[in-house]
Amino acid sequence: MREALENQLDEVNSDLVEMTRLVGHAISAATQALLEDDLSLAEQVIDGDGAINTLNMDVEERCLRIAALQAPVATDLRAVMSGIRMATSLERMGDLAVHIAKQVRLRYPNPPIPVELRETFGEMGAAASRIVDETGTVIASRNTDLADKIKVYDDELDRLHRELFTAVLSSTWGHGVEAAIDVTLLSRFYERFGDHAVTVARRVVHIVTGEPYSK
Amino acid sequence: MREALENQLDEVNSDLVEMTRLVGHAISAATQALLEDDLSLAEQVIDGDGAINTLNMDVEERCLRIAALQAPVATDLRAVMSGIRMATSLERMGDLAVHIAKQVRLRYPNPPIPVELRETFGEMGAAASRIVDETGTVIASRNTDLADKIKVYDDELDRLHRELFTAVLSSTWGHGVEAAIDVTLLSRFYERFGDHAVTVARRVVHIVTGEPYSK
Repeated sequence: MREALENQLDEVNSDLVEMTRLVGHAISAATQALLEDDLSLAEQVIDGDGAINTLNMDVEERCLRIAALQAPVATDLRAVMSGIRMATSLERMGDLAVHIAKQVRLRYPNPPIPVELRETFGEMGAAASRIVDETGTVIASRNTDLADKIKVYDDELDRLHRELFTAVLSSTWGHGVEAAIDVTLLSRFYERFGDHAVTVARRVVHIVTGEPYSK
Repeated sequence: MREALENQLDEVNSDLVEMTRLVGHAISAATQALLEDDLSLAEQVIDGDGAINTLNMDVEERCLRIAALQAPVATDLRAVMSGIRMATSLERMGDLAVHIAKQVRLRYPNPPIPVELRETFGEMGAAASRIVDETGTVIASRNTDLADKIKVYDDELDRLHRELFTAVLSSTWGHGVEAAIDVTLLSRFYERFGDHAVTVARRVVHIVTGEPYSK
């Protein structure tokens, strides 16, 4: 019984780690599509989202089965309940990568962002890729010390988000209202991506320590 | 045992309905603060969010306890798992009302939106208030026919969102880049609010019918 429960919880964890891997691919590809105005890569990100959604439902079904058949308690029960919440957050991170890719498609063949902002968006993309990699490691290892590193990347995303805000509002902004809105929304997608990673990391801490999570 | 389980599930449902009531107050007050540039009302919305977050954690704890002690199956188990997901969505709707209120506070004493857009934002606020009222009714009654009405209000929010986009991008827009970004973000907060209501309604249909939900 105990062994069966552990195997099933491992499967949930494997699904969650696999979700971080797919979401990592999605955000890297979405960033590359954004920086290189690559329509076919953007389409790949959009088409690939189905696999992330399927894993989300798979996690929920596995958790349902564990709860029904194994009557888990304490850490195990927290893992089951948090599994569902973490899958929701990871699925949403996949959606945000899709939002970025759709913006590339919407503006194609025009470049989705002004050339001089590519570097900043490149940094956002790199921070987002690192944050989701780290999230996968935190889930796999349940190493709560690593969860703090996620906050560092999230702070970096927040800083870059403010930097882009400043750019579009500066008196030297020469790209008009539509481009300003595009940049703001794209920047926000990356910033929200980081917030969800923080939520997932906090959930891992909650499973391990039983400490109440702040949302 | 059966009676205890039913009582506990009723308590989860009551919490969820109470969340819709608080979120309904929050979005109505946030809209009024936005239309009337009312700082103190905006502060009330921001301060009131803690109660919604507390209910979210309360729902999760109740669901944990039910899963551990009652070993629910079928519809009951779906209700337990979906309870957690619905609470997440409702909590996020509360956050979106807070985002609107914070925008009012950020721009105060300047009006947060141009006067000529007040009517459209008033319509968005009205649709958002109706959608969350209806969501509460769907949760309380588990009447899946009503879930379709939620989609109608959500379509209305999407339409108004597009209308505001068109306004800020028109050649007659005379309020500059910052106001355009403010309007776009505020409009997006209402549009996302509607999306979450649709997610909650789909969850109720899933509980009742067992049909797979699309995210």
